[in-house]
Amino acid sequence: MLSEQDNRRLTLTGPGTAMGNLFRQYWQPALLSRELEAGGAPKRVKILGEDFIAFRDGEGRAGVVEPRCPHRGADLFFGRNEHSGIRCAYHGWHFDVQGQCLDIPTASAKVAESLKPKAALHSLAVREACDMIWVHFGTPQGDTPQLDFTDLPPEHYFVSKKFQQCNWAQAVEGGIDTAHFSYLHANIDNGERAGLMPSQGVNEPPENGRYRWMIEDATPQFTILEHDAGLVMCAARQADNNQLYWRITQFMMPNHSMAPNSFPGDNHVGNTWVPVDDHSCWIFCYAYNPERPLSEQERRAYANGFGIFAEVDDNYVPIRRRENDYLIDREAQQTTNFTGISGISEQDAAIADSQGLIADRTRELLGQTDLGVVKFRRLMLESVDLMEKGGTPRGVGNALAYRVRSGDAMSEPDAVGLDVATNRFGELAGMSLRESRGTAA
Amino acid sequence: MLSEQDNRRLTLTGPGTAMGNLFRQYWQPALLSRELEAGGAPKRVKILGEDFIAFRDGEGRAGVVEPRCPHRGADLFFGRNEHSGIRCAYHGWHFDVQGQCLDIPTASAKVAESLKPKAALHSLAVREACDMIWVHFGTPQGDTPQLDFTDLPPEHYFVSKKFQQCNWAQAVEGGIDTAHFSYLHANIDNGERAGLMPSQGVNEPPENGRYRWMIEDATPQFTILEHDAGLVMCAARQADNNQLYWRITQFMMPNHSMAPNSFPGDNHVGNTWVPVDDHSCWIFCYAYNPERPLSEQERRAYANGFGIFAEVDDNYVPIRRRENDYLIDREAQQTTNFTGISGISEQDAAIADSQGLIADRTRELLGQTDLGVVKFRRLMLESVDLMEKGGTPRGVGNALAYRVRSGDAMSEPDAVGLDVATNRFGELAGMSLRESRGTAA
Amino acid sequence: MLSEQDNRRLTLTGPGTAMGNLFRQYWQPALLSRELEAGGAPKRVKILGEDFIAFRDGEGRAGVVEPRCPHRGADLFFGRNEHSGIRCAYHGWHFDVQGQCLDIPTASAKVAESLKPKAALHSLAVREACDMIWVHFGTPQGDTPQLDFTDLPPEHYFVSKKFQQCNWAQAVEGGIDTAHFSYLHANIDNGERAGLMPSQGVNEPPENGRYRWMIEDATPQFTILEHDAGLVMCAARQADNNQLYWRITQFMMPNHSMAPNSFPGDNHVGNTWVPVDDHSCWIFCYAYNPERPLSEQERRAYANGFGIFAEVDDNYVPIRRRENDYLIDREAQQTTNFTGISGISEQDAAIADSQGLIADRTRELLGQTDLGVVKFRRLMLESVDLMEKGGTPRGVGNALAYRVRSGDAMSEPDAVGLDVATNRFGELAGMSLRESRGTAA
Repeated sequence: MLSEQDNRRLTLTGPGTAMGNLFRQYWQPALLSRELEAGGAPKRVKILGEDFIAFRDGEGRAGVVEPRCPHRGADLFFGRNEHSGIRCAYHGWHFDVQGQCLDIPTASAKVAESLKPKAALHSLAVREACDMIWVHFGTPQGDTPQLDFTDLPPEHYFVSKKFQQCNWAQAVEGGIDTAHFSYLHANIDNGERAGLMPSQGVNEPPENGRYRWMIEDATPQFTILEHDAGLVMCAARQADNNQLYWRITQFMMPNHSMAPNSFPGDNHVGNTWVPVDDHSCWIFCYAYNPERPLSEQERRAYANGFGIFAEVDDNYVPIRRRENDYLIDREAQQTTNFTGISGISEQDAAIADSQGLIADRTRELLGQTDLGVVKFRRLMLESVDLMEKGGTPRGVGNALAYRVRSGDAMSEPDAVGLDVATNRFGELAGMSLRESRGTAA
Repeated sequence: MLSEQDNRRLTLTGPGTAMGNLFRQYWQPALLSRELEAGGAPKRVKILGEDFIAFRDGEGRAGVVEPRCPHRGADLFFGRNEHSGIRCAYHGWHFDVQGQCLDIPTASAKVAESLKPKAALHSLAVREACDMIWVHFGTPQGDTPQLDFTDLPPEHYFVSKKFQQCNWAQAVEGGIDTAHFSYLHANIDNGERAGLMPSQGVNEPPENGRYRWMIEDATPQFTILEHDAGLVMCAARQADNNQLYWRITQFMMPNHSMAPNSFPGDNHVGNTWVPVDDHSCWIFCYAYNPERPLSEQERRAYANGFGIFAEVDDNYVPIRRRENDYLIDREAQQTTNFTGISGISEQDAAIADSQGLIADRTRELLGQTDLGVVKFRRLMLESVDLMEKGGTPRGVGNALAYRVRSGDAMSEPDAVGLDVATNRFGELAGMSLRESRGTAA
Repeated sequence: MLSEQDNRRLTLTGPGTAMGNLFRQYWQPALLSRELEAGGAPKRVKILGEDFIAFRDGEGRAGVVEPRCPHRGADLFFGRNEHSGIRCAYHGWHFDVQGQCLDIPTASAKVAESLKPKAALHSLAVREACDMIWVHFGTPQGDTPQLDFTDLPPEHYFVSKKFQQCNWAQAVEGGIDTAHFSYLHANIDNGERAGLMPSQGVNEPPENGRYRWMIEDATPQFTILEHDAGLVMCAARQADNNQLYWRITQFMMPNHSMAPNSFPGDNHVGNTWVPVDDHSCWIFCYAYNPERPLSEQERRAYANGFGIFAEVDDNYVPIRRRENDYLIDREAQQTTNFTGISGISEQDAAIADSQGLIADRTRELLGQTDLGVVKFRRLMLESVDLMEKGGTPRGVGNALAYRVRSGDAMSEPDAVGLDVATNRFGELAGMSLRESRGTAA
């Protein structure tokens, strides 16, 4: 539970807000690399409540610049993308990917030269990595986060995105909350909750109990660890033969997560939640396999909305979304799956949206299974405090700290999270892995 | 004419408003009984500006509860309706029709027990009567209003509803205003206003003059009576042979009416206007015959939008409505009926909506034919005053006072309303029927 | 560049605003004459932020009156247009085109007589000229502006209108800005900007250089003249053989323009931008030929959206508009025309809309080619000042001062605007034509 003030502080990311300032310390993915074609159509991009246009010039360089021509304020979205950059449709003023003004045809050569520096567009620092175009609102400290798949050959990973119609923070809270698997994603068999397997298409033998254990134990025991990029959420459920089944989730500042559900050899998945404005966000979704290329079949499944990926339209807006109640099927809700909504991603989206455009955290009844959510909020709010006192929030300038991995593990009944995570992931459990006490620095 | 303050006081019914407090003293219909199926889909219900979900559990009991899960604020609309109540889709918290929390799967048994009382949902008192699900926001005093058809066998009545896109009060004012029949509902024959009969399909011999008298006399003489549930509006028009033709309308606090247009033997009709929010309301519509079952043909006609019933879509939203200008046909307006809008109900809806989302009553030119409207406003405002001084508004806790009837009568030229109503309806004219002086108590 | 205060002062025209008061000194076109049929459907009209209904009575007289029946506030839009005027659909109150109340059927004859004067509708003064219905909000001083085609036979002109989804003032600024022809309306040939001719269908031999000169010279030299109705913008571009090519635009207070692109014998075109509210306007468009009737082919081309006319739907709303990004075709933008948007009018609309619902003039980089725009703003703001001090703004009560003409001319390199305009148009250059110093009176 948060005070109304802390809830605003956690959720609002527009210019001048506390959390907005924190986000502006980090690289953020703004688009998929494939959304921009060299010399192709510019795209409108809204991020952290600010409007930009993104385009690739004729040489393939990507730019993310303010959309307003400094001459008379025409929208550069309508501009013509020429070899060296975008040219305003009104009077032909010309700008490169860094916002530099290249040409002012309405002025004499001499006047134009003196005017160009004043005519520069505000632009964001841009880098491309992991099939995404990353931006930084200020002066970047260090590289883009070195996510676990950063150095893998492209055949090993698949990246997409989906639009989410609520505030970023509650969507993150859904992403790091493994407790809800016992209900939200449950299948229904003979009127009772049952494993996820059949309808999710995961190619796993029935004797593997992980989906059954999630159904049978709705009160996983949480241990929160910390590392130099964020948090590790370890949730242990009762498994067969007195063993524990661990689902281990990574959270990396300020808005990345690597999800569990991977035993060694399985594909890994993760998300980044990027605020569009205070009431919506883009969720970048990635799947990868460190050991082998993804198969064509896997790529196709992800592209069509399997697992954390949503079934989306040409604009990456989910087909099943807020306006259509996610095409909830009340008959299916009684007989097939717990929500009557088709798709893991869509089930997550529905429940996050349903908390409101911005979840009201002033009225909650949190328990032990919400520990990860509580720690996430605390880390974010403490990081804002730290930044406001002049400190460096966790992860800033430390791209390598993001090289972490998530997944599942089995253990004896008395194992502790720190050991389980270290045994399972080694160094990929997180840089300077430690138990959670205070959080921020 | 009202002051701006009184206009707000009359019209606004959200939480904390004066009129909202008055409405919350009364039972109000929230849904049609047939809208909820045992164990079926929950429905979103907004009433007096407050959001709820309504559902029927597996045993057929109806519940109207706040839509927000107390755990993390997910919307219970997406919950699974199980035998004993609704289960939140996020983590499986479970609630019965009275909002009691039955199960908290994310907590240990011991923690859950101590948490359940805090986890109860705000819920409304619910009763079913007359094919409607009634709710009470507080502690009900007495039963739901005993409308005239309450104890009739179901074959004798038909109940439906329709959405109205304006404030409730101006819609009521249209419902109790018989003066407008001379124009709003007139047919056009050879370019002149003519009776309603042919296009309305009422099976009445042409020699019956009532539709002609309504056209010929646009200044009915009003007498307002009072009874223990509200008001009786008696409007006398000049008929043939020096007789008077009376249309007698009932208004029962705070938002019910029984309409005229019934000679003995005819079906009776009535409405209840329930505020959704300040800019829209549900109009519950009922038709009944005290003496005989309704025929299949009559039921079908009402279901298809005959008379006070609108032609509606699957969500009870009228086909001809504000956004499409009620499909007004300007050619038909010259040649067929006075508005060019098809349907008595739709004509009423159009004119009420046309007064604005909330009618501005600070600029009006009221006359003798608006007397019923004036008395309605005065009764409502005085009732608010009375309630605020600790008194009991008319009709509260007095379900039997609602057993009133409306309809038409003929009289000699010197008859007075009180006698005409008593002769026509006997005890059903209203409990403690009296002439109107002061109004409220 | 304007201060925020001056930008509001320039753009806002609702009741009580400074510019709104200025506009209310002038006749303004409210509808096309052909939009109202004698005895036909009333139309909703919003102008300067105020709502009206317009209708023609059975005798063909046009009226523009407030839409609210004074009895109970019903919307007279739903009224029945009868021979002598509109009759309210609720209770039959009847009003003529001047808003006089003709009949109050709900009252006795005697009461009705005393009530009628109080029941008059607020109405606007109305005149018809040039196929348009003009209104005046106050007491008109003099006739409607005597536009150049006012006295031509109807066969010589064509008038239409189109909806523009931004503030009126930036749309005017596009209309009087000939500098943008070098880019906004350029065609693309082999990847380079080229003349407008082929795709615009102007039947002009290729050897005529005017479209080439506009492409080649993006920095026309501006001279602003003044006359008793407003301004003349003269823009000289370098032509062949050391000659100058002049495009001469008229601006007449407060919102009329005659556009260039006419050599002697060509058709002339002009526009009037009438604020609907602060975020949209109607653009009335006219084409005429002083010397000959328009051909059927020309009329058809204008009606279908040629030149300054837009391709519109039945409600005069452009097919290519804000919501659909003007159906911009990015492929065409590379190969066919500079915007990828089809239609001169639509290109203008796109760029004006793109400046925002109200252009932000506090951040601009204006240059020599923006001189006409600067003078327009200054004239408007000074006229407001003048009016507020009790003076008479230019053009008020001076209908003949609007008899001006625009077009193109060639000159020797040392010619000055005043001479060029006078030589080209004679008295039609403008009443008391003079060089621009101060502007307003």
